[in-house]
Amino acid sequence: MLKEGRSQLGPDSSQDAQTISQMGEFRLIDRVTAGRVQSPGTTLGPGDDAAVLAAPDGRVVASTDVLVEGVHFRFDWSSPHQVGRKAVAVNLSDISAMGAVPTGLLVGLACPPETPAERVDELANGLWEEAQQLGIGIIGGDMVSSPSLTISITALGDLQGRDPVTRSGARPGDVVAVAGRLGWAAAGLAVLGRGFRSPVAVVGAHRVPEPPYEAGPRAATGGATSMVDTSDGLLADLGHIAEASGVGVDINSAQLGVPQRLTEVASALGSDARHWVLTGGEDQALVATFPQGTPLPADFRQIGVVAEGSGVTVDGNTYQGPIGWEHWR
Amino acid sequence: MLKEGRSQLGPDSSQDAQTISQMGEFRLIDRVTAGRVQSPGTTLGPGDDAAVLAAPDGRVVASTDVLVEGVHFRFDWSSPHQVGRKAVAVNLSDISAMGAVPTGLLVGLACPPETPAERVDELANGLWEEAQQLGIGIIGGDMVSSPSLTISITALGDLQGRDPVTRSGARPGDVVAVAGRLGWAAAGLAVLGRGFRSPVAVVGAHRVPEPPYEAGPRAATGGATSMVDTSDGLLADLGHIAEASGVGVDINSAQLGVPQRLTEVASALGSDARHWVLTGGEDQALVATFPQGTPLPADFRQIGVVAEGSGVTVDGNTYQGPIGWEHWR
Repeated sequence: MLKEGRSQLGPDSSQDAQTISQMGEFRLIDRVTAGRVQSPGTTLGPGDDAAVLAAPDGRVVASTDVLVEGVHFRFDWSSPHQVGRKAVAVNLSDISAMGAVPTGLLVGLACPPETPAERVDELANGLWEEAQQLGIGIIGGDMVSSPSLTISITALGDLQGRDPVTRSGARPGDVVAVAGRLGWAAAGLAVLGRGFRSPVAVVGAHRVPEPPYEAGPRAATGGATSMVDTSDGLLADLGHIAEASGVGVDINSAQLGVPQRLTEVASALGSDARHWVLTGGEDQALVATFPQGTPLPADFRQIGVVAEGSGVTVDGNTYQGPIGWEHWR
Repeated sequence: MLKEGRSQLGPDSSQDAQTISQMGEFRLIDRVTAGRVQSPGTTLGPGDDAAVLAAPDGRVVASTDVLVEGVHFRFDWSSPHQVGRKAVAVNLSDISAMGAVPTGLLVGLACPPETPAERVDELANGLWEEAQQLGIGIIGGDMVSSPSLTISITALGDLQGRDPVTRSGARPGDVVAVAGRLGWAAAGLAVLGRGFRSPVAVVGAHRVPEPPYEAGPRAATGGATSMVDTSDGLLADLGHIAEASGVGVDINSAQLGVPQRLTEVASALGSDARHWVLTGGEDQALVATFPQGTPLPADFRQIGVVAEGSGVTVDGNTYQGPIGWEHWR
């Protein structure tokens, strides 16, 4: 746990420190926790063996995501601040996808001794900025040395009396709807991969996703039968719903659409914008199913239907091409 | 989050797989989660965007620890199973040190593609074995590829209506008491560092700590005014209490004692057993303070007193020598 322990470093040398090895663990922890504002539900924040957080519902929702430098992000493509925001966003999106509201975060940061202290500062600022958008804080964590930079985040949330919206509740006849953007992060990644830095709209979508956080609880209240966030891509994540629910899902291309901006970017790169929309991950959109006839909650738009069967089709056909990302493959 | 997602791997090839890159993320997750028994409080376990866990107290206690290969453990000194047990033990000990009981774990595992699948299996078995000693399970997590092997664990716990026992409640006149072993893990580390593999008693203490899990809630019920686990070593961790509480702490050498077995090991290595007892970390003993006259709960024994002032002394004197470990230093 983040411990603001007694420093054994002697006189203050932090002002001149350039790397975290020159600064030391306890002083670095002081530096990234000092002056931060915790949520009212945080009974006990960083500095003890564990944190204590309100769980008013009597249940706690919990999700962990790990992001690794060179695998999930690159500091030549994203600033430490952007990496921090994204690390929090992908995790809070998981809480939202259960129909819960986030209540707190724990952050495990493993980084090499030669990491500039300023990089950790900026990363921490990014973590906090995204968290505070939702009125929550980093209630605890751990900082350790490591050969590679790894950010491990656990997000906690509260269901406010609602049932969790799982992946397994979709039923034939349900409507499939999405809130948030699809394909923008993939377009941004393609642009960066070609060595470009613009258009800013798509590059920014890769760097910092904009999950429709409030749409998750709204979907739960509005009767969603199943929900996921699109971390792996629309087809892959709908595949998770199809498998868990024992149903088939068909996407309607005309309803789905392809944003004009993505078409332009794809045209410039010789890529396929529709492929980005169907398979691009990391936009952290929310995809949910609703019983037919249910008014869709704000921000959701229909893109398909649930049917008997299995798997995910597009306009009734199996999608040709790779549809998701898998680690170590 | 651990997602038992649709596999895109085609026909089953797991039987012959040797490395996790040959196996793939989804199949590996299936393999380490299949057949595991969750606690009754686990409303929703691995396989969705987030887990849902009972928090009957209306508050949740949460702690994160990160362990890195080559920094916190070495596979030539400890088996993957032992590393798994230790990773869970150091984390659950933090929950106990708040006076809470553990309710669930989330595990973020980052490892290189060439990691043998068998190693991950054994690690997972170790994680589960230690967790199930306390009747809890791994309710979620994440598995990603990484240049180095990192285990990030978040433990959740329940206070059962008690106040959390923090580091800041020690008052002059309180008695300082310890439950659990001190110096054994440090002795084991010294033995391994010299290239030996025995005595098993101390080497085993380094490999898998035996935290007195039940002593934490017992201390809370018994009136403890402050508590920590000895992850950094007795003097360093008591230093955290002294600073947070604004008091001084004096250790009584005669009460503290030095186990005969550690004296023997130290003698063989030309080391100082008392130094191990005072400064050795990773035994995950619990050190707590109690108002004078309070009957000490089972397993606790007095080792000192709280006084006006600051810092930690031994028989009234400042301890000479390094007293703790700090990352990147």
